[in-house]
Amino acid sequence: MRDFRITTHVCLIARALGANTVILSDIIDKEVEKVIKRVIEMWGGPFSIEMGVPWEDAVNKWKTEGGIVCHLTMYGENIETSDVMSRIKEEKKDIMVIVGAEKVEKKVYHLANFNVSIGNQPHSECGALAIFLDRYFKGESLSKDFENARLRIIPQPHGKKVIKIE
Amino acid sequence: MRDFRITTHVCLIARALGANTVILSDIIDKEVEKVIKRVIEMWGGPFSIEMGVPWEDAVNKWKTEGGIVCHLTMYGENIETSDVMSRIKEEKKDIMVIVGAEKVEKKVYHLANFNVSIGNQPHSECGALAIFLDRYFKGESLSKDFENARLRIIPQPHGKKVIKIE
Repeated sequence: MRDFRITTHVCLIARALGANTVILSDIIDKEVEKVIKRVIEMWGGPFSIEMGVPWEDAVNKWKTEGGIVCHLTMYGENIETSDVMSRIKEEKKDIMVIVGAEKVEKKVYHLANFNVSIGNQPHSECGALAIFLDRYFKGESLSKDFENARLRIIPQPHGKKVIKIE
Repeated sequence: MRDFRITTHVCLIARALGANTVILSDIIDKEVEKVIKRVIEMWGGPFSIEMGVPWEDAVNKWKTEGGIVCHLTMYGENIETSDVMSRIKEEKKDIMVIVGAEKVEKKVYHLANFNVSIGNQPHSECGALAIFLDRYFKGESLSKDFENARLRIIPQPHGKKVIKIE
Protein backbone atom coordinates (compact mmCIF):
# COMPACT_ATOMS: atom_id res chain seq x y z
CA MET A 1 0.00 0.00 0.00
CA ARG A 2 1.44 3.30 -1.03
CA ASP A 3 0.46 6.26 1.03
CA PHE A 4 -0.46 9.36 -0.92
CA ARG A 5 0.30 11.74 1.91
CA ILE A 6 3.72 10.28 2.69
CA THR A 7 4.72 10.29 -0.98
CA THR A 8 3.66 13.93 -1.21
CA HIS A 9 5.70 14.80 1.88
CA VAL A 10 8.76 13.06 0.45
CA CYS A 11 8.44 15.06 -2.79
CA LEU A 12 7.96 18.37 -0.99
CA ILE A 13 10.94 17.72 1.27
CA ALA A 14 13.08 16.82 -1.74
CA ARG A 15 12.17 20.12 -3.43
CA ALA A 16 12.50 22.32 -0.34
CA LEU A 17 15.80 20.79 0.73
CA GLY A 18 17.62 21.07 -2.58
CA ALA A 19 16.93 18.07 -4.83
CA ASN A 20 16.30 18.76 -8.52
CA THR A 21 14.05 15.86 -9.37
CA VAL A 22 12.03 13.19 -7.70
CA ILE A 23 11.30 9.84 -9.31
CA LEU A 24 8.33 7.81 -8.09
CA SER A 25 9.46 4.39 -9.12
CA ASP A 26 7.09 1.85 -10.57
CA ILE A 27 3.96 3.88 -10.01
CA ILE A 28 2.05 6.67 -11.63
CA ASP A 29 0.23 8.82 -9.13
CA LYS A 30 -1.59 11.70 -10.73
CA GLU A 31 -2.71 13.13 -7.41
CA VAL A 32 0.83 13.51 -6.10
CA GLU A 33 1.92 14.95 -9.45
CA LYS A 34 -0.86 17.53 -9.33
CA VAL A 35 0.10 18.72 -5.83
CA ILE A 36 3.79 18.97 -6.70
CA LYS A 37 3.20 20.76 -10.01
CA ARG A 38 0.97 23.25 -8.24
CA VAL A 39 3.69 23.91 -5.65
CA ILE A 40 6.27 24.47 -8.41
CA GLU A 41 3.88 26.84 -10.17
CA MET A 42 3.30 28.93 -7.06
CA TRP A 43 6.59 28.63 -5.21
CA GLY A 44 9.09 28.11 -8.04
CA GLY A 45 11.69 25.66 -9.16
CA PRO A 46 13.63 24.21 -10.77
CA PHE A 47 12.11 20.91 -9.72
CA SER A 48 10.62 18.07 -11.67
CA ILE A 49 8.74 14.88 -10.99
CA GLU A 50 9.00 11.65 -12.94
CA MET A 51 6.78 8.67 -12.46
CA GLY A 52 6.38 5.05 -13.45
CA VAL A 53 10.09 4.34 -13.95
CA PRO A 54 11.06 0.86 -12.67
CA TRP A 55 13.47 1.55 -9.83
CA GLU A 56 16.16 -0.78 -11.07
CA ASP A 57 16.22 0.85 -14.51
CA ALA A 58 16.49 4.28 -12.92
CA VAL A 59 19.33 3.16 -10.65
CA ASN A 60 21.28 1.44 -13.42
CA LYS A 61 20.90 4.40 -15.77
CA TRP A 62 22.09 6.76 -13.03
CA LYS A 63 25.16 4.70 -12.27
CA THR A 64 25.99 4.18 -15.97
CA GLU A 65 25.92 7.93 -16.41
CA GLY A 66 28.43 8.36 -13.60
CA GLY A 67 26.23 9.14 -10.63
CA ILE A 68 26.25 7.47 -7.23
CA VAL A 69 23.35 6.05 -5.28
CA CYS A 70 22.72 6.56 -1.57
CA HIS A 71 20.04 4.46 0.06
CA LEU A 72 18.69 5.76 3.35
CA THR A 73 17.99 2.91 5.75
CA MET A 74 18.12 2.37 9.49
CA TYR A 75 20.47 -0.56 8.84
CA GLY A 76 23.15 1.46 7.07
CA GLU A 77 26.27 3.31 8.16
CA ASN A 78 25.39 5.94 10.73
CA ILE A 79 25.54 9.48 9.32
CA GLU A 80 26.58 10.80 12.73
CA THR A 81 29.09 8.26 14.03
CA SER A 82 30.70 6.99 10.81
CA ASP A 83 32.56 8.81 8.06
CA VAL A 84 29.98 7.88 5.44
CA MET A 85 29.00 11.47 4.64
CA SER A 86 32.64 12.47 4.04
CA ARG A 87 33.10 9.49 1.74
CA ILE A 88 29.97 10.43 -0.20
CA LYS A 89 31.21 14.00 -0.59
CA GLU A 90 34.67 12.87 -1.64
CA GLU A 91 33.11 11.15 -4.64
CA LYS A 92 32.13 14.59 -6.00
CA LYS A 93 29.41 13.01 -8.11
CA ASP A 94 25.74 13.58 -8.70
CA ILE A 95 23.67 11.72 -6.14
CA MET A 96 20.48 9.72 -6.34
CA VAL A 97 18.92 9.21 -2.93
CA ILE A 98 16.64 6.23 -2.47
CA VAL A 99 14.01 6.18 0.24
CA GLY A 100 11.64 3.29 0.40
CA ALA A 101 8.25 4.02 1.81
CA GLU A 102 7.43 0.36 1.92
CA LYS A 103 9.47 -2.82 2.08
CA VAL A 104 12.67 -2.21 0.15
CA GLU A 105 14.02 -5.09 -1.93
CA LYS A 106 17.26 -6.65 -0.72
CA LYS A 107 18.87 -5.84 -4.06
CA VAL A 108 18.76 -2.13 -3.24
CA TYR A 109 21.24 -2.64 -0.40
CA HIS A 110 23.76 -4.06 -2.86
CA LEU A 111 23.14 -1.81 -5.84
CA ALA A 112 23.46 1.30 -3.68
CA ASN A 113 26.97 2.69 -3.38
CA PHE A 114 26.19 3.80 0.15
CA ASN A 115 23.60 2.64 2.65
CA VAL A 116 23.21 5.48 5.12
CA SER A 117 21.32 5.43 8.38
CA ILE A 118 19.96 8.63 9.85
CA GLY A 119 20.25 7.03 13.25
CA ASN A 120 19.82 3.28 13.64
CA GLN A 121 16.30 3.59 15.00
CA PRO A 122 13.01 3.13 13.22
CA HIS A 123 11.65 6.43 12.10
CA SER A 124 10.56 7.89 8.82
CA GLU A 125 11.74 8.23 5.25
CA CYS A 126 10.53 11.84 5.43
CA GLY A 127 12.71 12.61 8.42
CA ALA A 128 15.67 10.70 7.02
CA LEU A 129 15.54 12.45 3.65
CA ALA A 130 15.22 15.87 5.27
CA ILE A 131 18.24 15.38 7.52
CA PHE A 132 20.35 13.80 4.78
CA LEU A 133 19.77 16.75 2.43
CA ASP A 134 20.18 19.33 5.18
CA ARG A 135 23.53 17.86 6.13
CA TYR A 136 24.66 17.24 2.56
CA PHE A 137 23.98 20.83 1.50
CA LYS A 138 25.02 22.18 4.91
CA GLY A 139 21.72 24.00 5.19
CA GLU A 140 22.26 26.08 2.04
CA SER A 141 19.00 24.88 0.53
CA LEU A 142 17.09 26.50 3.36
CA SER A 143 17.96 29.97 2.13
CA LYS A 144 17.95 29.46 -1.62
CA ASP A 145 15.79 31.56 -3.92
CA PHE A 146 13.51 29.52 -6.13
CA GLU A 147 13.13 30.65 -9.74
CA ASN A 148 9.85 31.83 -11.23
CA ALA A 149 8.06 31.87 -7.90
CA ARG A 150 4.76 33.71 -7.67
CA LEU A 151 4.77 33.75 -3.90
CA ARG A 152 7.48 34.48 -1.40
CA ILE A 153 7.41 34.47 2.38
CA ILE A 154 8.85 37.27 4.46
CA PRO A 155 9.83 35.49 7.68
CA GLN A 156 8.10 36.81 10.80
CA PRO A 157 8.66 36.24 14.52
CA HIS A 158 4.85 36.01 14.95
CA GLY A 159 2.29 35.79 12.17
CA LYS A 160 2.33 35.27 8.41
CA LYS A 161 3.54 37.52 5.63
CA VAL A 162 3.43 36.40 2.01
CA ILE A 163 4.15 38.62 -0.97
CA LYS A 164 2.97 38.09 -4.51
CA ILE A 165 5.59 38.49 -7.16
CA GLU A 166 4.20 40.05 -10.34
CA MET B 1 -8.68 15.10 8.23
CA ARG B 2 -5.92 13.71 10.35
CA ASP B 3 -3.58 11.34 8.61
CA PHE B 4 -2.66 8.25 10.59
CA ARG B 5 0.56 7.66 8.71
CA ILE B 6 1.83 11.22 9.04
CA THR B 7 1.02 11.30 12.75
CA THR B 8 2.92 8.04 13.19
CA HIS B 9 5.91 9.43 11.30
CA VAL B 10 5.91 12.55 13.46
CA CYS B 11 5.92 10.42 16.63
CA LEU B 12 8.70 8.13 15.37
CA ILE B 13 10.84 11.09 14.32
CA ALA B 14 10.33 12.70 17.71
CA ARG B 15 11.52 9.53 19.48
CA ALA B 16 14.45 8.81 17.15
CA LEU B 17 15.70 12.38 17.18
CA GLY B 18 15.72 12.94 20.91
CA ALA B 19 12.33 14.09 22.19
CA ASN B 20 11.06 12.55 25.44
CA THR B 21 7.34 12.76 24.87
CA VAL B 22 4.87 13.43 22.13
CA ILE B 23 1.43 14.89 22.77
CA LEU B 24 -1.30 14.37 20.19
CA SER B 25 -3.48 17.32 20.98
CA ASP B 26 -7.24 17.10 20.98
CA ILE B 27 -7.40 13.58 19.60
CA ILE B 28 -7.16 10.05 20.85
CA ASP B 29 -5.73 7.72 18.24
CA LYS B 30 -5.36 4.19 19.51
CA GLU B 31 -3.73 2.97 16.30
CA VAL B 32 -0.89 5.46 16.51
CA GLU B 33 -0.50 4.71 20.22
CA LYS B 34 -0.22 0.99 19.50
CA VAL B 35 2.50 1.46 16.88
CA ILE B 36 4.52 3.77 19.09
CA LYS B 37 4.21 1.59 22.19
CA ARG B 38 5.34 -1.40 20.16
CA VAL B 39 8.39 0.54 18.94
CA ILE B 40 9.27 1.54 22.51
CA GLU B 41 8.90 -2.08 23.63
CA MET B 42 11.22 -3.39 20.92
CA TRP B 43 13.66 -0.50 20.43
CA GLY B 44 13.68 1.15 23.84
CA GLY B 45 13.03 4.48 25.46
CA PRO B 46 12.54 6.57 27.40
CA PHE B 47 9.69 7.90 25.31
CA SER B 48 6.03 8.43 26.04
CA ILE B 49 2.92 9.38 24.17
CA GLU B 50 0.01 11.42 25.51
CA MET B 51 -3.25 11.93 23.71
CA GLY B 52 -6.42 13.94 23.86
CA VAL B 53 -4.97 16.98 25.60
CA PRO B 54 -6.40 20.25 24.22
CA TRP B 55 -3.42 21.98 22.65
CA GLU B 56 -3.97 25.29 24.39
CA ASP B 57 -4.07 23.64 27.82
CA ALA B 58 -0.84 21.77 27.06
CA VAL B 59 0.89 24.95 25.88
CA ASN B 60 -0.25 27.04 28.84
CA LYS B 61 0.76 24.36 31.33
CA TRP B 62 4.19 24.06 29.67
CA LYS B 63 4.80 27.79 29.80
CA THR B 64 3.53 28.10 33.39
CA GLU B 65 6.00 25.43 34.41
CA GLY B 66 8.86 27.41 32.88
CA GLY B 67 9.23 25.83 29.46
CA ILE B 68 9.32 27.55 26.09
CA VAL B 69 7.32 26.77 22.99
CA CYS B 70 8.72 26.59 19.45
CA HIS B 71 6.25 26.37 16.62
CA LEU B 72 7.62 25.09 13.33
CA THR B 73 6.07 26.93 10.40
CA MET B 74 7.17 28.02 6.94
CA TYR B 75 6.22 31.58 7.92
CA GLY B 76 8.57 31.83 10.87
CA GLU B 77 12.14 32.97 11.38
CA ASN B 78 14.47 31.00 9.15
CA ILE B 79 16.56 28.48 11.09
CA GLU B 80 19.41 28.91 8.61
CA THR B 81 19.54 32.64 7.93
CA SER B 82 18.38 34.09 11.25
CA ASP B 83 19.75 33.74 14.76
CA VAL B 84 16.58 32.08 16.03
CA MET B 85 18.26 28.79 17.00
CA SER B 86 20.89 30.63 19.08
CA ARG B 87 18.17 32.59 20.84
CA ILE B 88 16.27 29.37 21.59
CA LYS B 89 19.40 27.78 23.03
CA GLU B 90 20.25 30.84 25.08
CA GLU B 91 16.97 30.38 26.93
CA LYS B 92 18.34 27.11 28.37
CA LYS B 93 14.81 25.90 29.02
CA ASP B 94 12.82 22.78 28.27
CA ILE B 95 11.25 23.01 24.85
CA MET B 96 7.88 22.04 23.50
CA VAL B 97 7.88 21.85 19.71
CA ILE B 98 4.56 22.32 17.93
CA VAL B 99 4.00 20.95 14.46
CA GLY B 100 0.60 21.27 12.91
CA ALA B 101 -0.35 18.61 10.46
CA GLU B 102 -3.40 20.53 9.43
CA LYS B 103 -4.43 24.14 9.53
CA VAL B 104 -2.84 25.68 12.60
CA GLU B 105 -4.87 28.22 14.54
CA LYS B 106 -3.64 31.82 14.38
CA LYS B 107 -3.37 31.84 18.16
CA VAL B 108 -0.46 29.38 18.02
CA TYR B 109 1.71 31.98 16.28
CA HIS B 110 1.25 34.31 19.22
CA LEU B 111 1.36 31.84 22.08
CA ALA B 112 4.59 30.34 20.76
CA ASN B 113 7.77 31.95 22.05
CA PHE B 114 9.43 31.22 18.73
CA ASN B 115 8.02 30.57 15.27
CA VAL B 116 10.75 28.81 13.37
CA SER B 117 10.83 28.05 9.66
CA ILE B 118 12.87 25.16 8.37
CA GLY B 119 13.18 27.02 5.10
CA ASN B 120 10.40 29.33 3.95
CA GLN B 121 9.06 26.83 1.43
CA PRO B 122 6.12 24.49 1.73
CA HIS B 123 7.26 21.09 2.79
CA SER B 124 6.43 18.77 5.63
CA GLU B 125 6.03 18.77 9.38
CA CYS B 126 7.96 15.49 9.38
CA GLY B 127 10.93 17.03 7.61
CA ALA B 128 10.76 20.20 9.68
CA LEU B 129 10.68 18.35 13.00
CA ALA B 130 13.55 16.07 11.97
CA ILE B 131 15.82 18.95 10.98
CA PHE B 132 14.89 21.06 14.01
CA LEU B 133 15.76 18.25 16.43
CA ASP B 134 18.90 17.26 14.51
CA ARG B 135 20.19 20.81 14.67
CA TYR B 136 19.06 21.42 18.23
CA PHE B 137 20.83 18.32 19.54
CA LYS B 138 23.68 18.74 17.06
CA GLY B 139 23.16 15.19 15.85
CA GLU B 140 23.78 13.66 19.30
CA SER B 141 20.43 11.86 19.24
CA LEU B 142 21.52 9.87 16.20
CA SER B 143 24.04 7.95 18.25
CA LYS B 144 22.27 7.66 21.57
CA ASP B 145 21.64 4.31 23.21
CA PHE B 146 18.01 3.69 24.03
CA GLU B 147 17.23 2.03 27.36
CA ASN B 148 15.57 -1.37 27.68
CA ALA B 149 15.81 -2.12 23.98
CA ARG B 150 15.27 -5.69 22.85
CA LEU B 151 16.74 -5.09 19.42
CA ARG B 152 19.81 -3.22 18.30
CA ILE B 153 21.16 -2.61 14.81
CA ILE B 154 24.79 -3.12 13.95
CA PRO B 155 25.33 -0.66 11.08
CA GLN B 156 26.40 -2.27 7.81
CA PRO B 157 27.73 -0.85 4.53
CA HIS B 158 25.49 -3.34 2.67
CA GLY B 159 22.78 -5.49 4.21
CA LYS B 160 21.03 -5.76 7.56
CA LYS B 161 22.29 -6.87 10.93
CA VAL B 162 20.08 -6.81 13.99
CA ILE B 163 20.95 -8.31 17.34
CA LYS B 164 18.56 -9.40 20.03
CA ILE B 165 19.40 -8.23 23.51
CA GLU B 166 18.50 -10.79 26.15
